[in-house]
Parts: sequence; structure tokens; C-alpha cells
Amino acid sequence: MGSPPRAGRDRSGHQYAGSGKTLITMQTGAEPADLADVRITNLAVVLRHVRAHAPCSRADIAAATGLNKATVSSLVADLIDRRLLRETGLTENRIGRPATMLVLDGEPYAAIGIEVSADQLSVVAVDLGGTELLNWRRAFTGQGGTGTRAVSSIAALANRAIGRLAAQGRGVLGLTVGVPGLIDDAGTVRGAPSLGWRDLALGAELRRALRDPAFEVVVENDANLAVLAEHRHGPYAGTANLVHLAAGAGIGAGVVADGRLLRGGRGFAGEIGHLCLDPGGPRCPCGRQGCLEALAGIPALVRRVLADSTQDGPVTDFAPELERVRTRARQGDRRALEVLAEAGRHLGHAAAILGNLVNPEVVLLGGYFVVLAPWLLPAAEAELTARTVAPDAGGTRLAASALGPGAAAVGGAARALAMVDAGRLPPAPPT
Amino acid sequence: MGSPPRAGRDRSGHQYAGSGKTLITMQTGAEPADLADVRITNLAVVLRHVRAHAPCSRADIAAATGLNKATVSSLVADLIDRRLLRETGLTENRIGRPATMLVLDGEPYAAIGIEVSADQLSVVAVDLGGTELLNWRRAFTGQGGTGTRAVSSIAALANRAIGRLAAQGRGVLGLTVGVPGLIDDAGTVRGAPSLGWRDLALGAELRRALRDPAFEVVVENDANLAVLAEHRHGPYAGTANLVHLAAGAGIGAGVVADGRLLRGGRGFAGEIGHLCLDPGGPRCPCGRQGCLEALAGIPALVRRVLADSTQDGPVTDFAPELERVRTRARQGDRRALEVLAEAGRHLGHAAAILGNLVNPEVVLLGGYFVVLAPWLLPAAEAELTARTVAPDAGGTRLAASALGPGAAAVGGAARALAMVDAGRLPPAPPT
Repeated sequence: MGSPPRAGRDRSGHQYAGSGKTLITMQTGAEPADLADVRITNLAVVLRHVRAHAPCSRADIAAATGLNKATVSSLVADLIDRRLLRETGLTENRIGRPATMLVLDGEPYAAIGIEVSADQLSVVAVDLGGTELLNWRRAFTGQGGTGTRAVSSIAALANRAIGRLAAQGRGVLGLTVGVPGLIDDAGTVRGAPSLGWRDLALGAELRRALRDPAFEVVVENDANLAVLAEHRHGPYAGTANLVHLAAGAGIGAGVVADGRLLRGGRGFAGEIGHLCLDPGGPRCPCGRQGCLEALAGIPALVRRVLADSTQDGPVTDFAPELERVRTRARQGDRRALEVLAEAGRHLGHAAAILGNLVNPEVVLLGGYFVVLAPWLLPAAEAELTARTVAPDAGGTRLAASALGPGAAAVGGAARALAMVDAGRLPPAPPT
Repeated sequence: MGSPPRAGRDRSGHQYAGSGKTLITMQTGAEPADLADVRITNLAVVLRHVRAHAPCSRADIAAATGLNKATVSSLVADLIDRRLLRETGLTENRIGRPATMLVLDGEPYAAIGIEVSADQLSVVAVDLGGTELLNWRRAFTGQGGTGTRAVSSIAALANRAIGRLAAQGRGVLGLTVGVPGLIDDAGTVRGAPSLGWRDLALGAELRRALRDPAFEVVVENDANLAVLAEHRHGPYAGTANLVHLAAGAGIGAGVVADGRLLRGGRGFAGEIGHLCLDPGGPRCPCGRQGCLEALAGIPALVRRVLADSTQDGPVTDFAPELERVRTRARQGDRRALEVLAEAGRHLGHAAAILGNLVNPEVVLLGGYFVVLAPWLLPAAEAELTARTVAPDAGGTRLAASALGPGAAAVGGAARALAMVDAGRLPPAPPT
């Protein structure tokens, strides 16, 4: 933008040509936003200090954080009660009375993530240190099944995982379910075309099916969870500005901006699949024209490469076709290479939209795109550079995700761990 | 997205079918990210408490925050030294020794924001309470002038403002300069087409011209500052997810997501002007085709409505033409109404891209768009709804900005205030 609208200068009701008027009417700033959050912040500070400096004493913590000893004692008592910290022996290596040393515990906990897709469910559980405790998959019928049956299947898998963890003496920190669709803040799936779901109150129904557990049950868009997994795990862990752009039956994006998941006002951020890249492009099943999914989605891509193959109705499991596409590309089949390069250009265009608007450090191609990445990336990179306004593509790179299948399940578990890091304590563990 | 890539399951190097593997390799979480930030966080907590509960005593603060009394005393001493707090009389209305009560001070401070546009400079100063202390404009030649001359002009205006504030006994909290262009994290203008600037180290040169002042001198994209102004001031103050989409010589966007400015990896977020909305659309001066600016920018719009007008070379001050466009629209001129409706559709398309990717609660049309909003909004709203994947346009509304000219100057001042709110203390005030 450039200069302000002079033409409006005499007409706007919001002139401030004079002085002495109150101009800034709101104070906002850094967290903690609320003094009621102070204890939560302080719990996080104590956990963080122990994570970095264990073993350490209560006095060490008080000295380092400025919290008073009574407060530290109370916070530590809470953390020991929840078995997030534990006491080790005494140390004598100091002046005065020997101090009891503290280390991280967390042994009795696990976080569970479940990923729902059109043809399978994946479940992953990890402990507080990030070690994987279990990783299962089972077949699942999304499309065609009813919402009630889906809830039962997910709850059954969750219960099996909870049971296995209980047998290990572990309580559950939280359960997060990733779904390819629009999820509102209440955990209701407003729409998930690849599953045929619409306005399914998955969060509420799962909580009911699990008999109102003491832990949090959260439903979140699968790409949003996958990007949390990228942010915590793998070669781009810790990258503050990061996008996971992935293909399943559709295309979705999850965005981490300045270290935090970008959710937007109602949790619908990252809906990249139906951006119109070409108003004259092919018709999309959504009714619009030239959507990214219609141009570079796996179904469109498979259909174009395997124009000779017979198809009977919609396919939810693309693996066999995808393997054929890959084989042809490897063999240098011209049609396959052309289709993949064209899809790559459209993905590069989508990456450039993200680059211009969100300016991530990296856009990771995930899901089905991973296996096609060698043929998608060159065209995508060229397009990203050409379409980004900032020099050097604004520093945005494209790469294939290194996370295997089930990234959203891993991200679901990561979400629950992040809650604890932030000082939101889990319910008391099993005794 | 849907199910994960089965085809890749056997080939990925990142399988975690087994158990016991460390999966989550990084711990990230809520702020404060670093224990070194604890004092800053605590200063912010104390300021916030006093803002909400003044007058209050040191003991009140300690009780409410869990900070120990010695820490509170030390923090309060710092804040009194900087004259951000001051002591009032004693209160006797309590058990025990009467306590000294604290209230906010901040009287001796001002924050300065300067907005640079193609034809003028605006400067605004506000005190810590948000009251406007001065608001000046002066003519300015961006295009055609040299960087050195521009730096001198901006520094001269800043010095005049600083002098005026000094005469009032006020020190400067910070100076923020908004520029319509790509600004990197070092405050270098990487490119500002409407000013003809390229790789101008504006931040460094301004600091030098101001003789390395004790306060922060920050250069930021003007739309990023304008959205901070929206976030603090006016009808949408406090809206956590907010976009300011404004026209000057070009089109820029500033995004606040979850209460924070979205800057991206290198500070280039919000570059919406050259998103391609129509690959077959008109050629843009940037060399691309069908850019938002080429379709709905003020120069394009003026040219189309006033096809009969003679133009000699590039215009930087659009006010007279814009007024003629508005007059024609008011008179019901068919061509004007058609051109504005078409521009509105493209703005709605751009808003839908923002809606799908960032899901803001509101997209505010600012800058030159404000005076044209009555004719732009109806078409823009229809397009936004049609192109947003989430129901009910994902809750995203479109509206005209209520901020007058100089929104980026106001936002620049707001940025410096936010630093203090966050516990980043200013240099000691004049005595």
C-alpha cells in the first residue's frame, strides 16, 4: 500500500488532527494475558527450569525464577503429586542444610494421538519424554459408514490403547483425534468430504463413548496436527514458521507461525485445497472451478496419468494407483512426467500463495505427495520462486516431509505434551 | 487430506512401527521460552496487575502473582525508576502497617509512529495511556527522490517530534516507521516500488541520522503497523484474528493471528498485492499477470473508470482521481459502478484466500479502499462467501476500516507501547 486516502480526509469520522484525544483504547501484549494464568505460567516455568537444569533444588528454582520459596514449594508439590517431578537423594555439596534435589518424572503418563483417514485409523502413544509406546493401525471404513459406527470404531481403538497403557501403569495425558475436514472449536466435524461426514459432533460423542474420561479429548484438523508433528519431530523440528502441505483424498495445510499453530477465528485456517488457481481450470467435485485439488490432488493426478485404467466409482485407497504412477515416472513415461510436472507447478503456485501471505521458512510436502516428491519438487520450486514477491522466494524452501504415515497421530500426541509444557497439568496419575 | 501414503510405508526411512523409539525430539511450548525472560515476564505481570487493580500495594502484587516480596520490590523499584509506576499516599484501611499504594505513571513517555507514503509523511505520538500528543503531516517526495534525501526528511520530522515531546518533558519509548514495501528483520527496505526504493538500509541510516538514540528505531511494513492500530484502536480493537487489507499505490495486507502480528520467517508476510487471481488477467507492472493489484489496485481502477482522462506518466497522488471516481459512482455512472463491482469481486476473492488460509474474524478494507467501500463491499462479500470452503464464510466478515489516514503511524506508536506492556522497559526517562 502507499499513501493514505486524502480524499477521505475530510469525511472520515475518525480524524485525529487535534491533540489530547484518546487514541489507543486497548492494551494488549505478551502472555500471560490474565493474572489467573499466573499459576499456570509459573508451573510451566518450574517444569522448564527442571528440564534444563535437573537435578536442582527448590531453592535453586526460587533463585533462578524470582518466585518465592513458598510458591515454589506449592508448585513443586503439585508437580510431584501429578508425578511430573520427583525427588532424588539429598546433595551435600553446598553451604547450609542439604537440599532435596528434583528431576523430571512423567513416567506414569502417555499422550495418545489418533489419525482418521478414509481407509484406516492410526494410533500412536508417547511418553512425556517423547518415546513411542505404541503404534497401531487398523482398517476403517469412513466413506459409506455411519457417523455412529465411526465413533464406535475410534472409541474402540482408543480404549484398546488406554487399556494397554493402563497395564503399563500409565495414565493418559490427553487424546487428540485428527480428521481430514473442517473442525470447529467444539470438536464438531463441520464437513469431511473424503469421509462423507457433515456436522458430526465427534468430540462430544467420543467423550461420551469413553465415559467422560478425566483427560482431554480434542478433535483437530489432521493437517494442523501433522504440522505440530513437524514442529516437534524430524529435520525441521523447532522451525518457527513451517507449513505441512499434504495430500490424502484431498489437499490440506497446517501452518505453524512464530512457533504456534495458526488456527484462525473458528479453527478453519489452512484450507488450501479449494483455492482457485485457475478460473478456467477443471471442474472440482466441490462445485468450484480450478481448485488446487482439481489441479494437483491425487485423484486428479492418478486419473490423468492412468487415463487408460478403468475406474468404477470413487476410490478412497489410492495406494495401488499411486504405486503405478510412481512406476511410470521411474520408467520415464512421458505422460506421467508431464502430469507430475504440471501438478508440481500448481503446488509451487500454492506454496507461493503461502509464501507471500505467511512467509514460512519451509513448506513440507506430506502425505501421498512424499512418494511423488522427486517429480513434483523441481517444477514446484521454480514456480514458487517466480511467484513470490520477496527476493529469494522470501526465504521459503520446499521439501518432502520426512514424517512417515501417521504424522497427524504423532502430532495429536505432541499436542497433549505441549499442554503439559505450557503448565496445564494432567489429571492425577494412576496410583 | 485423507489417509497417509501406504505406498510409501515400506520405503520411508522414518518408520516407527516398533516401540521404544524416541519420537518427539523437541520440547516447545508456551512462553516464556527462556528463563532469561523470566524477569521481563514478571515486569509485564506487575504492570498488568497494577493496570487492572491500581491503586495496589507491593504486598497485594506479591499475593496475587505468587512472586516473592523481595522480587516484587525489585521489579517495582525498576518500574518506579523508569517512571512507569509511581507511589501515591499510604492507605490505612487494612490490618497491620499501612501500605504505600502504587498506580501507573508513564507521564514522561511518548511513543512515535511515522508513516511513509509516496507523497507524504505522517507522524503521530501517543502517551502510555494511548492519548494522542501530536499528529502532523508533511509533503514528501518518495518516487524520484534519493534514499539519502528520504532518510533526511524522515529524520528531520522525527527530530521535530522528539523536540516537541522533550519540551513537554517527555522521553521517547520508541520510534517505528511504516513503509509500503518489503522490510527485512534488519529494517532494510528490500523493495518499495511506489517509492522507488531498493535495498535501502532505512533502519540503520535513521539510527545514524538520529545519532544512535537510546530508544528503539524500528522499520516495519506499513500494513503490518496498520493492523496493529486496528488491533488496539477502533471498532475491532481486541479482535484476535484480524486483517487490514489496504490500498495505497499498491495493495498490502497486515495480519493479526491469535492476537499477534503475523510476520513470517523473514518479516515478509501479508504480501497480497501480487497474488495471481487470474492467469489470463491483465499484465501487472511487476511483470506478472492477473495480480490483485492489476485487477483491483487504485491505479488500475482509476484508469478503467476514467478512461477518458489524460494521464502523463505515473501518478503517486491519486486523491483527485479517486474523488472523481467516487463522484461518478454516486451519480450512478454505469461504467464506474461496473468497474467498482468487478474490483469488489477480486477483493472478495483475495479475502477468501485469506479466509481459507488464515480464517480471520474480519478483513478490514483500509487506505484508499475506505472511500470506495460502499461500492466495493457488496460484490466482495458475495465472492468471499462463494469462495470460502467453511460454512458461513468461516465466520469471516468484510468491513471498511474506521481508521483514518495515518493508520500505520498510529500502529507504529502502538507497537512501541506493546513492547512496554510486554515488560521490555524503555530507557530511563528525562529527569
